[in-house]
This record gives sequence, structure tokens and C-alpha cells, in this order.
Amino acid sequence: MTLRASVVGGSGFTGGELLRLLTQHPEFEVVQATSRSYDRKTVGRVHPNLRELDLRFSSPEDLESVDVLFAATPHGVSMQQIDAFFDSAETVVDLSADFRLSTEQQYDEWYDGHVCPEYLDRAEYALPELNRENLPGADLLASGGCNATATLLGLKPLFDAGIMAGDEQVVVDVKVGSSEGGAGGGDASSHVERSGIVRPYAPTGHRHEAEIEEFLGLSVSFTAHAVDMVRGASATCHVFPSSPVSKSDLWEAYRASYADEPFVRTVAGGGGVYRYPEPKVVAGTNMAEVGFELDPKNRRLVVFSAIDNMMKGSAGQAIHGANVALGFEETAGLDATGFHPVGAP
Amino acid sequence: MTLRASVVGGSGFTGGELLRLLTQHPEFEVVQATSRSYDRKTVGRVHPNLRELDLRFSSPEDLESVDVLFAATPHGVSMQQIDAFFDSAETVVDLSADFRLSTEQQYDEWYDGHVCPEYLDRAEYALPELNRENLPGADLLASGGCNATATLLGLKPLFDAGIMAGDEQVVVDVKVGSSEGGAGGGDASSHVERSGIVRPYAPTGHRHEAEIEEFLGLSVSFTAHAVDMVRGASATCHVFPSSPVSKSDLWEAYRASYADEPFVRTVAGGGGVYRYPEPKVVAGTNMAEVGFELDPKNRRLVVFSAIDNMMKGSAGQAIHGANVALGFEETAGLDATGFHPVGAP
Amino acid sequence: MTLRASVVGGSGFTGGELLRLLTQHPEFEVVQATSRSYDRKTVGRVHPNLRELDLRFSSPEDLESVDVLFAATPHGVSMQQIDAFFDSAETVVDLSADFRLSTEQQYDEWYDGHVCPEYLDRAEYALPELNRENLPGADLLASGGCNATATLLGLKPLFDAGIMAGDEQVVVDVKVGSSEGGAGGGDASSHVERSGIVRPYAPTGHRHEAEIEEFLGLSVSFTAHAVDMVRGASATCHVFPSSPVSKSDLWEAYRASYADEPFVRTVAGGGGVYRYPEPKVVAGTNMAEVGFELDPKNRRLVVFSAIDNMMKGSAGQAIHGANVALGFEETAGLDATGFHPVGAP
Amino acid sequence: MTLRASVVGGSGFTGGELLRLLTQHPEFEVVQATSRSYDRKTVGRVHPNLRELDLRFSSPEDLESVDVLFAATPHGVSMQQIDAFFDSAETVVDLSADFRLSTEQQYDEWYDGHVCPEYLDRAEYALPELNRENLPGADLLASGGCNATATLLGLKPLFDAGIMAGDEQVVVDVKVGSSEGGAGGGDASSHVERSGIVRPYAPTGHRHEAEIEEFLGLSVSFTAHAVDMVRGASATCHVFPSSPVSKSDLWEAYRASYADEPFVRTVAGGGGVYRYPEPKVVAGTNMAEVGFELDPKNRRLVVFSAIDNMMKGSAGQAIHGANVALGFEETAGLDATGFHPVGAP
Repeated sequence: MTLRASVVGGSGFTGGELLRLLTQHPEFEVVQATSRSYDRKTVGRVHPNLRELDLRFSSPEDLESVDVLFAATPHGVSMQQIDAFFDSAETVVDLSADFRLSTEQQYDEWYDGHVCPEYLDRAEYALPELNRENLPGADLLASGGCNATATLLGLKPLFDAGIMAGDEQVVVDVKVGSSEGGAGGGDASSHVERSGIVRPYAPTGHRHEAEIEEFLGLSVSFTAHAVDMVRGASATCHVFPSSPVSKSDLWEAYRASYADEPFVRTVAGGGGVYRYPEPKVVAGTNMAEVGFELDPKNRRLVVFSAIDNMMKGSAGQAIHGANVALGFEETAGLDATGFHPVGAP
Repeated sequence: MTLRASVVGGSGFTGGELLRLLTQHPEFEVVQATSRSYDRKTVGRVHPNLRELDLRFSSPEDLESVDVLFAATPHGVSMQQIDAFFDSAETVVDLSADFRLSTEQQYDEWYDGHVCPEYLDRAEYALPELNRENLPGADLLASGGCNATATLLGLKPLFDAGIMAGDEQVVVDVKVGSSEGGAGGGDASSHVERSGIVRPYAPTGHRHEAEIEEFLGLSVSFTAHAVDMVRGASATCHVFPSSPVSKSDLWEAYRASYADEPFVRTVAGGGGVYRYPEPKVVAGTNMAEVGFELDPKNRRLVVFSAIDNMMKGSAGQAIHGANVALGFEETAGLDATGFHPVGAP
Repeated sequence: MTLRASVVGGSGFTGGELLRLLTQHPEFEVVQATSRSYDRKTVGRVHPNLRELDLRFSSPEDLESVDVLFAATPHGVSMQQIDAFFDSAETVVDLSADFRLSTEQQYDEWYDGHVCPEYLDRAEYALPELNRENLPGADLLASGGCNATATLLGLKPLFDAGIMAGDEQVVVDVKVGSSEGGAGGGDASSHVERSGIVRPYAPTGHRHEAEIEEFLGLSVSFTAHAVDMVRGASATCHVFPSSPVSKSDLWEAYRASYADEPFVRTVAGGGGVYRYPEPKVVAGTNMAEVGFELDPKNRRLVVFSAIDNMMKGSAGQAIHGANVALGFEETAGLDATGFHPVGAP
Repeated sequence: MTLRASVVGGSGFTGGELLRLLTQHPEFEVVQATSRSYDRKTVGRVHPNLRELDLRFSSPEDLESVDVLFAATPHGVSMQQIDAFFDSAETVVDLSADFRLSTEQQYDEWYDGHVCPEYLDRAEYALPELNRENLPGADLLASGGCNATATLLGLKPLFDAGIMAGDEQVVVDVKVGSSEGGAGGGDASSHVERSGIVRPYAPTGHRHEAEIEEFLGLSVSFTAHAVDMVRGASATCHVFPSSPVSKSDLWEAYRASYADEPFVRTVAGGGGVYRYPEPKVVAGTNMAEVGFELDPKNRRLVVFSAIDNMMKGSAGQAIHGANVALGFEETAGLDATGFHPVGAP
């Protein structure tokens, strides 16, 4: 028997991806998608790929009773609505930043405070590669930020293997596509102004530093650039480890962490065109690619990771986390393969 | 029990798409992919989306015995190899132009002749929307050309409904992505020279005119332009019908032809951003979008159609045709939904 | 001694291009740029290429007295302000559609009427290739629409040479970049929704049909598609001439019309990558490329033309027209060469 | 009286840019462009923007006698030909890496050795912002590498102002366009494979590290990524200074170094869409944009710089250096302004 699911904030980009994934998921049926702006309009009007879906947006005021509610609302909305969410659902999967961090103090420091700090302990970070053991049975899941996810997946094996301890100097230089800004956006998001750019859009002080610190205990120097693609986040981590490390150490570390992970693969060198992680290879999928290269001259280790920010970086991760929390097959609804050839999905 | 399938020409773009589709297809298992250039290399080296696939290319000289052989070789190869293909397979699905037309004379006129004209009668055009009734049991299928497919799907309802008779003036202005040129290619295919272009690449005399004439009995004035996308073919047909036609006539015609088709949808006007067929909406899927607009001032009818040239325009159509020929569920292996947001897949 | 010039509507795309061209023009000095939204802000804040320009926007209410006023305001504004424009300037060059057509009836039919029809006789179409003889001394110039300009330049030699008479069937299929929509724009103009598209955005009834009819006496069936580039308009005219025509007839016709034109070159066949007109080759310049191909099978003639919609299609044409009207060197301020390699300018 | 100039290697991308710049330069006339592959073909066949240029490529075996020879050949060719170059020219401006470093040992370490080390002392690095004082009268100029140029211009003010001493930890993360790979290139350079990418193409060990070390005495950890643009190089330098630094210190440093430089401007914050250096703003020009942001939490300083790799990063820098060496106006032939709106030039 399928579980009833709703998507709050269904007209946004991540909301649309949730609807696409849930309607193809063997364990879920979508009973509601809310949108204040598109109330009573068809889902296909906003998401043309879903024209066949026989569903209209409804008002977020009238939440139907469901098993699982997915919240794809902007930061700050879920913390306001969390009681209403739990009034209508057994399980809440939130895609905003509202329940990712563990303490009210962090929200004071990185965001504008928190209005429901009592839920922070209850929430579990939804990224299974980091937090699988705490997900089964969890009823409040916080899907990770896309840039944080890319960074965390890239660096985790180094911690698992003891190559990093958390006090290293690390620069994270991220390149992201235009979907990361969400629907709407002003002049800076227009095709004219945003085509062909390499634009520093979060030079310093990016909030995802907090998530990375939370889960790795590592302070990173983070900078994000917008580049000309729609989907995709690519993180390059420049790490200066305290002791020398070899390529075989690295291969061993990445295999140990990810050999059994269905959604992470290691790509580091080899022949052909695609020798390191690239976002366009994983576009449309829940897969993350991670890889690395050594720089002995500078005693540096460069770690690359690439995800689809709409999938592994938000909607796909949310479904993956829900699959684990609810005891479903981990890959249920997430087994799409990427494309080749492909442009800039 | 699954059927054994092979892909000859597996390192090309359409070969890669066939491999992706067949490995996810419930009725097939892939037992061989050939490539002269990449003999013994892994499939994932060429098609990075298929890195998980445990398969290496083998030489086209050593064809394994299979139930269905898919040939994704350049024009002129299949006609040379067709006997060898049938020596190793019960059913052959050819993606080149070698078996699309019905007479040797047409190959003399549009191509460089034909070396196996005795097979032409046996071959069936694989596009089910045009030729479904002749597909069951066919053992030689010829998957249609991408531009011809887009054009045929756009115009067919006008013939079905008697709005066109075949003697009308029709201009077909097509816009295609870079994957249509196939792998390889010289300077003109490089990113530097091909980015941002609107390039007339087949101004007149395009061979797909022959396929359109073959199946609609209509002579079209065809011109193709290369534009900046990787996947996708968009055909705009400017039709001058002999009698006036209304919008409701058109809606009736398109509904009559396509209401029951799983892979065609009509998009003509309405609200939102996507009001007519657009290739990026169907990218990655086997769906075709068709639509129309009236131009009373010029007594013109404009028909739009959009497909993914790699899917509905080649590999997807081949699988769809094979599904019908072999008695499988028509949509088997082809039920992927498109993406939103999406760039230029 | 330089002439004093002002740009009304200086924060829009064509306004910015006018400012760029005028500040580099040997005969002009810019004394004012108006913008309601950016009043008192620097020009460089909106147009980052003009950061070195020491000029702030001022309110359109306070027009300074100048020799030449360039109006880059949306359609409908210039006809409201034309008296005020002439109160402050000897010569007015308007880039909107407000003074392109010759009769009030045309504005009733194609636009929402006209509030100053008494100026229509006084206005001269600014495209020198069509109207050079009437420009010297004119004090109201109407710069042509970009799509009309591309089409007119492509077809004109056929009329000059008597190959066309005006009663032919002609389909014009245009592909344009995102700058044609102007600044602002909603969701459809966002990078996410507009990347990688082939989008029918003016399927029928485009207003530029009126300009083409006005200057060639030819009724055309016009359709425009938005494609993934920022600058550029490419018109493909499918012409069915009443008598047969040869390639040498065509070369003779195009040479006769354009051999002495500084801003038109004919590109038709030959070797290399660029064999027909392409917008990216002329991007950033006032050059138009025109070319042709014969289709004997369909008794069709295909004419290609490509311009930079911001230059030959608006700001460059305005300057060119003003140069002729004011007796300056025709190419003054417009001698920039295009780029190679180049992406999608 | 103009100087006679030749371009050896005129069919490559930088060769084409040299030809464009030299034909518009008030002090030069181009008398020869060589190309082995396109011998006797017109320049316009390869560089469509130069179709008006009445010049055919000639063989590199027959160098004409000129005042200045510009060599735009691949690395390793100029060191082989340098005697022949000086046989035919008074002054040689080399755009390859062959004369950028000062010792044979560096060429042994970073390249494949040097066959004419006796010229290394004679050569002057052509970047005037770093080496203006040594250029007048120099007869062998070595134009800098594009990525090195971007990095050097970004960091130089920190050395000038004593904010950096050379022993700091510095990560340089560069994003480059496809023109950087030069003409030719294989599958990886095709539009299909290169569209929409963020591809680590020089993860570690990039040779431009040597140039940066040579001119700043600073060892940097350098990584380059290919992104979807044609022209442009953007360097993000993550610097960890030994003492705290304030924004006003930085503004003071950048103003001190660059206030009088005609080809560098500082962009750091402010309003509007373009708040930091962006390659598309300077595309087509010889301008470099530099800027910075502070990251007090991580005691980090982030420096951004953006150039057009074809201009400031190669051909433009070569002309600029030649202008200084020969006593011309510094900006002669280089005064083009960038574009807005603009896509990805």
C-alpha cells in the first residue's frame, strides 16, 4: 500500500522535482501540492514536464492529512509552519535550512534566529551517507544544502580514514548553476545578465559553512561562483593535510567510505574525456561523483565533487532520506541514469 | 524471460543511448556492444553516465548470437552488413537511413545508391504513430530520421483530418542541437566555433525530404539550422492550406490523431512560460510535443513540433518500434519524465 | 566641433549601446542620459562596460538642450513625448516603432493607434541601405525594427534586380537572442527558463510584418523563435520566385545592391566553417551578413541574413542614420570589427 | 610612418586576434600572416570577422622582412625559430611560453627543456603592469600566460602594499573558456562534450605556477576548471595573510597600484548586478578587472580577477607590451570598450 504524500511549496523548482520523483515512486502517491501563487492552476502550467499529471495546486492554508509532508518552502517558512505540518502529517521532510543545524545559537549566528528551537533536537540531517544510522524512524528530516552536500561528500572519506582531523586549512571553491537561486530572482537572474558568467555570488560568509562545520567539525573557507549551467553544483576542496598522503591511501579511503553507497562513485583520473567528477554527468540523477588529485609540490590535496543540486542537493536527497527513514528500498524512485551526450541540464 | 540484445556501433551517441535504454528495459538484457575504436575499453569510458555498467566494447567482427540486434552505425554500413546482422540475430533494428525508403531509385536519387535493395520491401519504418499496423512481427525495422520524425508528427493530423491533401506549399524550418552531427566532427563541431550559433547547415536538399515525401506524399521545402543546444530538434512547418481552417478544426484533428498516443502531446497556447512545443521540455524522454497557430492574414497555418533527437528521433523510437514489433508493452523502458528546471540537455 | 547628444531611456539595453557608441564617436559628446528608475545613479552601475564613463542618469523630466536627442524608450513613449523632444533638440532619432510606419491607419491596425500622426510624414526610416536618399537634413529619424531590418536587407537585392515583384509567397523564419526582449521581463526571461530553448515567441502576427510591407510592398508570413544567444537576429527567408533564377543571377543582384555598402557583406557558400550569414560573426558590429542558396527541386530560393540586433538592428542603425542625416562620415563611430573566436555575444 | 608587422601562426586563435588588432592599430601595417595548414587561403576563410581583410596566409618558411614579428605559435616552436625570427625582424613579440621564464632550469622543471637558453636574459615579460620599466627598447618580448596574468594582476597590489610577503598560503582556483585550448582539440573540445561543464582540466601542476612564482616570488596552489564560455579567464585567489587587513587597507593598496593603469580597474562590492570582476564584462577588451572581499571568520582574503584570455591574456597584452617597447601611446589600438548586454563572447 502506498503512502500518501503532499508537497508544500510545489511551484518552486525543488517542489517540482519532488512532484516528479514522488509520482514515479513505487511507495508514494501524491495527494496534494500547494502553491499560494498558482492556487487552482494545473501543476503542468508551471512544470511543463508534468503536463500529464492530473493535479492542481491548492492553497497552503488547507493542508490535507497525509503520511509524509515534503516542505519545499523558502528558508524561515517551515519553522513558522512546523506545528501545522505535524498536524497534517506523521512525517515531515523539510528541504529548507530550518532544521539542519542543531542549536538555536547557530541560527542566531548564521541566520535570523529560530522560532521553534524545540524541534532542533528532533530533526535528523537527511543525507544518508553521513547520518544513515539515525534516520530509521525519524519523523522530522532536514535535507542538506546543495553546496554543503557536495563538500561533505567530497571530504568525508578523509575523516573516515584519519587523513584529516578537522584542524586543516581547507578552501572550498564552488561553482553552481542558475537553478540554485530558485524561481523568481531579479535582473541578475535574467538570461541576458546571467549567460556566460563566472560570477562571485557568495564570496565569503556562506551559510553552508555552518552545515559543514556541524557535520565534519571542520572550519572551511568557502566561496561560491555562479557559472553558465542550470543544474549542478561542483565543489573543489583544496586541502592541506598535516601528513603526506599517497594516491593509494586516497583510493583506499574513498573505497572504504563509498564502495557500498548506491549514490556515490569515485572518479579520479583514467582515460577518456571525463576524468574527474563533473556535474553534467550526474545531472538528472541522485548520484554524486567524488574524486581527487595530489599536488606534492604544494603539499596539497585537491578533492572534487559534483552533484545535481536539484537531486542529490535537495529533492533527491529528501526522497533518499525518506526511503531510509520509512524502511523502503534506498534507491526506490531514484534509479534514473544520467545522459550522454548531454548539454547543460 | 528477457531477450538478448546487442548494439553494433555502441560508442556513438545513439549507440550510447541504446545501451542506456536497453539496460533499463524490463524485457532486454544487453550481451554485446561493439566498437572498432574502443575495442576492449569499458563502455563507461566513452559514456560516463554508464560507468556502473559492467561491459566492454568488442570488435564488430565477432557478433554474438542475439534475439535483437540494434545497429547504430553511420549511413551505408548497415546495408553492407545486413546479411551478417541477420546471421547473428532474429530481429534487426537499424537506426541509419539504409532501410527507411522503399525503392532503390530513391537511394540513387537521395543517397549513393543501395547495395542490398532486396531488403527494402522487408523493412518497416519504425515510427509507430505512422506505421504501427505493420510493425508486429516485422524483423527489420528502420528507425526514422530525427528531422523527418519531427516533421511527420507535426503534419500527420492535418492529413488524417483531410485538412491537407499533399499538394500544399509547405516550408519546414528546423533547428537542431549539436548531437545531431554525431561524435567526431571537425572544427565546425568544436565548442569554440559552435557556441551561440544560428548556422544554416542544410540550407536545401536535405535527405529527410525523401522520408517526408515517402510517408506523407508531400513535397516539402526543408531547411535546417544548427543552434546552441546539444539535444533536440524543433520543426516549424509553415503550411498554406487550400481551404480555410479554424482553431477548433485543428484541436479536433490533433486530438483525433494523438489522444491515444502515449508519446505525443499537443501544446498550443494556454498560460505560463511554455505555450508551444519546446525541445528542452521533452529532452531525455521519448515524448514529442506538437502544436499549431493560425495566421489568417497570410492564410497560413504554423505547426510546431519538438523532440529529443537522441530519443524520439533515434534510440527511443527504435526501442518503441521494437516494443511494438515484439509484442511488449509500448512504453516499456521509455517511461522517463522530462525535467524542470532544465538547461539544454 | 562636436555635437551635443542626449539619450532618453539610457538604462535600457539599446540606451546603453547608444551611450557606448556615442562616447566613442568622433562627432558627438554625450551631455545627458535619462532614466526614471536609476535617476542619479552612475551609468556604470547599470552598464558595467561603461564604468569609466563619468556620467549619472538624470530624470527624463529635465531634458537638456542638445543638438541630437536619441530616444531609446519603449514603444508608445516617444509619440507622447515628441513635442518635448523637439523643444530640447534640433534632431530626434527614435529607436522605437513610433515613427516607422507612414500612416495613422497602420498604427491602428498593428499597434494601439497613434497620438501624434502629424509627425509621421516628417519621419524618415533610418536604414540607409533602403532610404539613404531621404536622410540628409531629416530631423526625425525612425530606426528600424531588428527583425524587419534583417529581413529587408536580405530581400532588397531581389527587388532591385527584378527577381521579385512583391506578389511572391515568402515565409520568414527568424531566430533571435534574449536581448531582443529588453531589460526586465518575467519568468520567461530568466536564465533557468530561457537557456537552451527553441521557443516560438511570435508565431504569427508579428508587428514587423508591417515594416516589411511598408518598405518592400511585400506581404510576408513571419514567425520568430527565441534561441540560446543574447545578441543576434537571424532571418531565413523562403522565397518562391515566379521565374527560375540562377546562382549567378543572385550573385549579380547582391553585388549590385551591396558592393558599395560599408555595412553589408554577402556570404554564400565557399570553404571553411562559416559559409552563410551567422549572427555571432557580426556580433558587436554594425555589419549585416546576407546570403542565399537555391533549391531547384522546390523552385525555392532561401535567403539568409544575420545582424546584431543591438547594433544594425537598433543602436548602430540609429547612429548610421544620424551620420547620413547630419553629413558625417557614414562609418563614423561604427568601424568596430567582430571577434573570432567568439561564443555568444 | 607605420611599422611593418608580421604574424607567424596566423590561423590560430591568438594569431587571428593579433591580425584584428594590428590592422586597426594606428602604428602598424600587417604585411604577412603565415600558416602552414592554410597557405594561400584567405585570412577570412579561417577568421570570418576578417573577411574584409585583403590578405592570404603564406608559408612560415618564407618570412618577409618586417619591423616587428609577432609569433603566435605553439609552445616549443619559437625557441626553435628564434634565430630565423630575428633574421627577418628587428623586434620579436612571442606569445608562447618559450621566453617567459628566466633560467634554463625552470624550463627543465616545468617544460621539456630549452633549446636557446641564451635568449632568456634578453627577453622581457610583456605585462606592463609588472614590468613596464624594462620594456622600452626591448627587442624580445614574452607575452604572459593568461591564467598567470589574471593571477599576477590580482595579487600584485598586496605585494606592493606589503600586505603579502611571499610566504603566505595561497590557493588559486581558475575558471577558463574553451578558447584557451586553442584551435583543433579532440573530443573533449567538441560542443557536445564541452557544453555546460565544470571540468577540472588542470587539477594540479599547472605550468603557470612557474610564471607566478617568477614574478611574485610566491608559490601558489593552482587549479584550473573549464566552464561554459569561449573567452575569458577568472582567477579567484584565496589568500591567508599573516596579519589582519581591513577593507580600507585593500582599497588603498589597489588604488595605489592601479589608479594610473589604463587597463586595470578595481570592482569590489557596490550596487547592481556586477559587483565583482567578471570575464564577460571585459570580453573583447584589454581591460582586467580586479576586486576582493574579506573573510574575517577564516582570516582569509579573497581576490578576484577577470580578463579576456585572448586579449589581456595574450594578443592584447602583446600589443600593449609592444606599444611600450616601441614608444607608442600605451593604449594605441587597444581602446575598445566592452559590451552590455552580452552573452558569452
